Amino acid sequence: MGNCCESASNFFGPQKNTNVRVSLPAVCFVWQIAMIVLFGVFVRYDKESDAHWVELKKTENLTDLDNEFYFRYPSFQDVHVMIFVGFGFLMTFLKRYSFSAVGFNFLIAAFGLQWALLMQGWFHHFDYSTGKIYIGIESMINADFCCAGSLIAYGAILGKVSPVQLMVVTLFGVTLFAVEEFIILDLFHCRDAGGAMVIHCFGGYYGLAISWVLYRPNLHRSKRLNGSVYQSDLFAMIGTLFLWMFWPSFNSAIANHGEGQHRTAMNTYIALASSVLTTVAISSMSKKGGKLDMVHIQNATLAGGVAMGTAAELMITPYGSLIVGFCIGIISTFGYLYITPFLEERFKLQDTCGIHNLHAVPGMLGGFTGAIVAATASESVYSKEGLIATFDFTGKFENRSPGTQGGFQAAGVCVAMAFGLVGGAIVGFILKFPIWGDAADDNCFDDEAYWELPEEEETIPPVLEYNNHMTQQKHRET
Amino acid sequence: MGNCCESASNFFGPQKNTNVRVSLPAVCFVWQIAMIVLFGVFVRYDKESDAHWVELKKTENLTDLDNEFYFRYPSFQDVHVMIFVGFGFLMTFLKRYSFSAVGFNFLIAAFGLQWALLMQGWFHHFDYSTGKIYIGIESMINADFCCAGSLIAYGAILGKVSPVQLMVVTLFGVTLFAVEEFIILDLFHCRDAGGAMVIHCFGGYYGLAISWVLYRPNLHRSKRLNGSVYQSDLFAMIGTLFLWMFWPSFNSAIANHGEGQHRTAMNTYIALASSVLTTVAISSMSKKGGKLDMVHIQNATLAGGVAMGTAAELMITPYGSLIVGFCIGIISTFGYLYITPFLEERFKLQDTCGIHNLHAVPGMLGGFTGAIVAATASESVYSKEGLIATFDFTGKFENRSPGTQGGFQAAGVCVAMAFGLVGGAIVGFILKFPIWGDAADDNCFDDEAYWELPEEEETIPPVLEYNNHMTQQKHRET
Amino acid sequence: MGNCCESASNFFGPQKNTNVRVSLPAVCFVWQIAMIVLFGVFVRYDKESDAHWVELKKTENLTDLDNEFYFRYPSFQDVHVMIFVGFGFLMTFLKRYSFSAVGFNFLIAAFGLQWALLMQGWFHHFDYSTGKIYIGIESMINADFCCAGSLIAYGAILGKVSPVQLMVVTLFGVTLFAVEEFIILDLFHCRDAGGAMVIHCFGGYYGLAISWVLYRPNLHRSKRLNGSVYQSDLFAMIGTLFLWMFWPSFNSAIANHGEGQHRTAMNTYIALASSVLTTVAISSMSKKGGKLDMVHIQNATLAGGVAMGTAAELMITPYGSLIVGFCIGIISTFGYLYITPFLEERFKLQDTCGIHNLHAVPGMLGGFTGAIVAATASESVYSKEGLIATFDFTGKFENRSPGTQGGFQAAGVCVAMAFGLVGGAIVGFILKFPIWGDAADDNCFDDEAYWELPEEEETIPPVLEYNNHMTQQKHRET
Repeated sequence: MGNCCESASNFFGPQKNTNVRVSLPAVCFVWQIAMIVLFGVFVRYDKESDAHWVELKKTENLTDLDNEFYFRYPSFQDVHVMIFVGFGFLMTFLKRYSFSAVGFNFLIAAFGLQWALLMQGWFHHFDYSTGKIYIGIESMINADFCCAGSLIAYGAILGKVSPVQLMVVTLFGVTLFAVEEFIILDLFHCRDAGGAMVIHCFGGYYGLAISWVLYRPNLHRSKRLNGSVYQSDLFAMIGTLFLWMFWPSFNSAIANHGEGQHRTAMNTYIALASSVLTTVAISSMSKKGGKLDMVHIQNATLAGGVAMGTAAELMITPYGSLIVGFCIGIISTFGYLYITPFLEERFKLQDTCGIHNLHAVPGMLGGFTGAIVAATASESVYSKEGLIATFDFTGKFENRSPGTQGGFQAAGVCVAMAFGLVGGAIVGFILKFPIWGDAADDNCFDDEAYWELPEEEETIPPVLEYNNHMTQQKHRET
Repeated sequence: MGNCCESASNFFGPQKNTNVRVSLPAVCFVWQIAMIVLFGVFVRYDKESDAHWVELKKTENLTDLDNEFYFRYPSFQDVHVMIFVGFGFLMTFLKRYSFSAVGFNFLIAAFGLQWALLMQGWFHHFDYSTGKIYIGIESMINADFCCAGSLIAYGAILGKVSPVQLMVVTLFGVTLFAVEEFIILDLFHCRDAGGAMVIHCFGGYYGLAISWVLYRPNLHRSKRLNGSVYQSDLFAMIGTLFLWMFWPSFNSAIANHGEGQHRTAMNTYIALASSVLTTVAISSMSKKGGKLDMVHIQNATLAGGVAMGTAAELMITPYGSLIVGFCIGIISTFGYLYITPFLEERFKLQDTCGIHNLHAVPGMLGGFTGAIVAATASESVYSKEGLIATFDFTGKFENRSPGTQGGFQAAGVCVAMAFGLVGGAIVGFILKFPIWGDAADDNCFDDEAYWELPEEEETIPPVLEYNNHMTQQKHRET
Repeated sequence: MGNCCESASNFFGPQKNTNVRVSLPAVCFVWQIAMIVLFGVFVRYDKESDAHWVELKKTENLTDLDNEFYFRYPSFQDVHVMIFVGFGFLMTFLKRYSFSAVGFNFLIAAFGLQWALLMQGWFHHFDYSTGKIYIGIESMINADFCCAGSLIAYGAILGKVSPVQLMVVTLFGVTLFAVEEFIILDLFHCRDAGGAMVIHCFGGYYGLAISWVLYRPNLHRSKRLNGSVYQSDLFAMIGTLFLWMFWPSFNSAIANHGEGQHRTAMNTYIALASSVLTTVAISSMSKKGGKLDMVHIQNATLAGGVAMGTAAELMITPYGSLIVGFCIGIISTFGYLYITPFLEERFKLQDTCGIHNLHAVPGMLGGFTGAIVAATASESVYSKEGLIATFDFTGKFENRSPGTQGGFQAAGVCVAMAFGLVGGAIVGFILKFPIWGDAADDNCFDDEAYWELPEEEETIPPVLEYNNHMTQQKHRET
């Protein structure tokens, strides 16, 4: 009977092999050594983290507090928590894939940030006179942001790929990110402090395109593990809440000093609060008895932060932020209820975490929201110098009007989507080669494939009984 | 037999119905839309978060760092974590109410902070010349604080009310908070940086009064679920620790710049350490074998932060802080051991989380401690200008003596208690209407009523066995 | 049969008694009262947290932002999270010792930080003219650091000692720490911002020496509980990630203002990323099928932060940081694979958490790395004033050369090791007295000994069935 079963699976194709004992260490070592070599050739401290700053401070009459570190470091640490605990634990909701969720998230973010320091450095901080990249606190924040794109993509393919494939997703994801970011922020001169376009829209469509190419017709065979248990939903709430709480820091981390960071954080805070209420409302309306669905609470509540990624920096007004949060909470929850099942059935798009509803669509809409708010900016609302400072209308962009800016912002959304979709499709095809160690269709969503799992808890009770037995005897005898 | 059972319950009154499919979405939508309209009419950016600040900075010769954002934002984020992760996870200790603990905490804080921005704005930041409220980072901290009052109240009624009732508790809680805060801080000109009076004393008695009115004589029918399991106690420790660690930020978040914030954080840090040791001591003394009780460790260790809510800002001295923590750790743990059971038996007061011992009493005692420390303040200890700065003896309070200040501080405690008790009683009666969807006495402390729960873990083992079976076959055949 | 069993255990020695009902409260009360008295005699606010600062600010022409609070507080809070959540949850990996892991960590850190404020105060901040210690934000960070030494030691003896013994470990640990720190930082004038020497090397060898003296030949009798379950490994990952994310703050918290903190944080961030990849690589190589081991991911990924404890502050260069992380990830994972089992078998050294591989060795190597980087420092790399500022070559150390500095740094490592090993051995012997309430060899790693445990979850299902039954009946009848 085992033989028969084996033959049947051979009939459909060679049995999948999840052994990554050669490929995973090889990729880790080769890429890490490459990082060391490239860092050795290219990366140096920027002037604010170099010991020479002690002299520079005197000659330029600066104080310690002028060091960029004090403007950015608290926000950096919040972003760092979002990347590692936020994204990591948000994906622990599956009953038997929590080790992979939090562990592979850890692995790919740790690799991705190194590659991001290089890629973003070449595009943004390369000094042609010395041939070096100079990094500082802002580079660290941007590197974390850059990883976020790939971590979002991980959400779509969670449970269906091997760690080696994830390393490939991240290598290309970071590369594509750096290029589209250069086009959108530098060439188009868009504003996108919280990355609605460059992070969420790109990352969302990148992941969806990969997942679409990697479609698994027999994924239903792993259906038993494609769901949560009580405890795993609670672990996921740790991720949700740290993302939700620190999103104001995410959007404001690299915003303009002073009122820029201040306003960005506040707009995001307000929008997020609003999207919680509409998420709860729609979730409750959709179920018998008005019961809430943890999937919605864990995810759609965050859409307000994504959708404010571009506009939070602008003078969208507090009630404008509330409206954005209101609408996106409804849209995102509807997505989880109707669009994700529809996409899976009709478009053969399997999206484990529903990143379509949390990142792709809210990112895209957030980009367009930013375009509209930018296009309607005026000197009366921003003040003359405020307008210049907010949109950085300096240098060769000195004469750009808000209307033109809005047009470029909208074009930026399209670039982010295009990079995500085309790049994701290509990466998806690369990942189809049968060399990466991904699991078979009946073995997905299972930590067993890549982790030494501890024995089951079932082994405890007899021991406890034995102890109780002993204790009772002691009591009896004393 | 089912028929007989049904009749019996009908005999005692109509069967409770926990269906909130109409009421919960309705409340969420109506209130959120009201928020948008009111924000549209009233709320604008303050001058430090408005784009005009770029020009203001020049005319007033300010630097970016003078923006209030950099004095408050790190503390704000710590407070934010306390509100959403701290309070949320602290209440997950019940074995089957963790979704509601963390989820409803999320919902009511997200609503409460919006309403708080408005209520506190009208009372504290309303500009009569423009008819607008101007908000900034300090408003965000205060809004989070204001929610804390209602979240504390949630602790007393945890497991016994519906989410719709919680929204009502929050609506009135925030409203009452803003009024008592106005009386205590503005009219009485009290100092209460960490809110021992306005947050903890008020919130504690508010929750107790509500719970007293909502007394459930047959709550013992849900006794099976009114307790913890091993994992739920661990989740609760996440809440405890984030509250404990960030309490110095809570108390110092809106303290005076410079030495004010510095001293407040340090006093709180010291007092909290002290209350851990006395909590452990009393907990160990009270049980056979000296075993510790998780309820005490999760809660009474935090009492030091509550009790320092007023005095932490003052020159209470480091050893004074230690003494406060020492005493309140003992008092709070005694409360959990003897007072909560006593109140339940004699006064028909069911207090799920024991907020009487963590918030009401420590808040009240903290208020009186602050009054004593204020009354004994002297120029020799504070310096002349330090005394003026610490107590804000300026304007019409220029000639107030420390003794008078102490009297007003004590009066403030009474106002907070009165608002909590009277307000809570009224809200409790409102919540008795049989329209809110709360659970029956035999169905409390159960997520089942309001959440779609995942299937039980029991379904996994056979699947794993199946996999092992398959794996063994593969091994055998290769 | 019970009788026989009892006799057998009496034959090997008196039955161990884990009753701490007298000793634990006594120690807590006596020590806490001692703290109050000593704080009363010695501890006062420093000038930046005293109300007099309001006048000082005017006379010295300072602004609020010059208060040390704003340079250090965000880092302090990150360190605080590492001490209480990081260390606490990292040790929850054992299946039935999570209450003790997180609870006793809480207890000893809360005591330790008070004692540390005194001990470090006497050595570093004692004013002979007034006979007082003046404390501020930097004292709080250093007190947390000082506790870390004892918490590291807890890792080696986790599950095998009573809370009273842990209090003793902490009392001596903090005392020894303050002395070795005085020798290394003050007498030798070493740089050790992140404490590779004074915290990790000392704490690691301190714990190992204690554990070696307390060797339990029959510990295998508790083997059933000396391991993890799925959920406990996830809780441990909370600890791992908060340690990993906030390690840049740990190393930079007391580094020089400005570029010092900036560079230290960045170097640590880079090294940690690198050690994640090599940890994954070695872990995967070592197991059948390339499966990863949670023990490695939870621990060895952090070694990069430990190993950068000294050098992160120096101009080690970004690629230098990558190389340190690369090597230490490999070394630490090898330690978990081969050295810990070897030490246990050959040297009778039972190291529950493997602190040998995470703290002792990486701390020692980190100390030597720092010595080498210091010895090779030059004016061309640091600038003339940068060199002086980084190594504080002022006062009586004005003429010290980098080479000499390197020699002293290396000597510092030896002092830290010696204090750890000798101090730990002595403390171990003190802990062997049969009065401390530690558990018997067959009862280790069990919360049952010191905690009131909640009933098992097994009692829920029948209740749920009962509810479903009721619900079905209701449905049928309506």
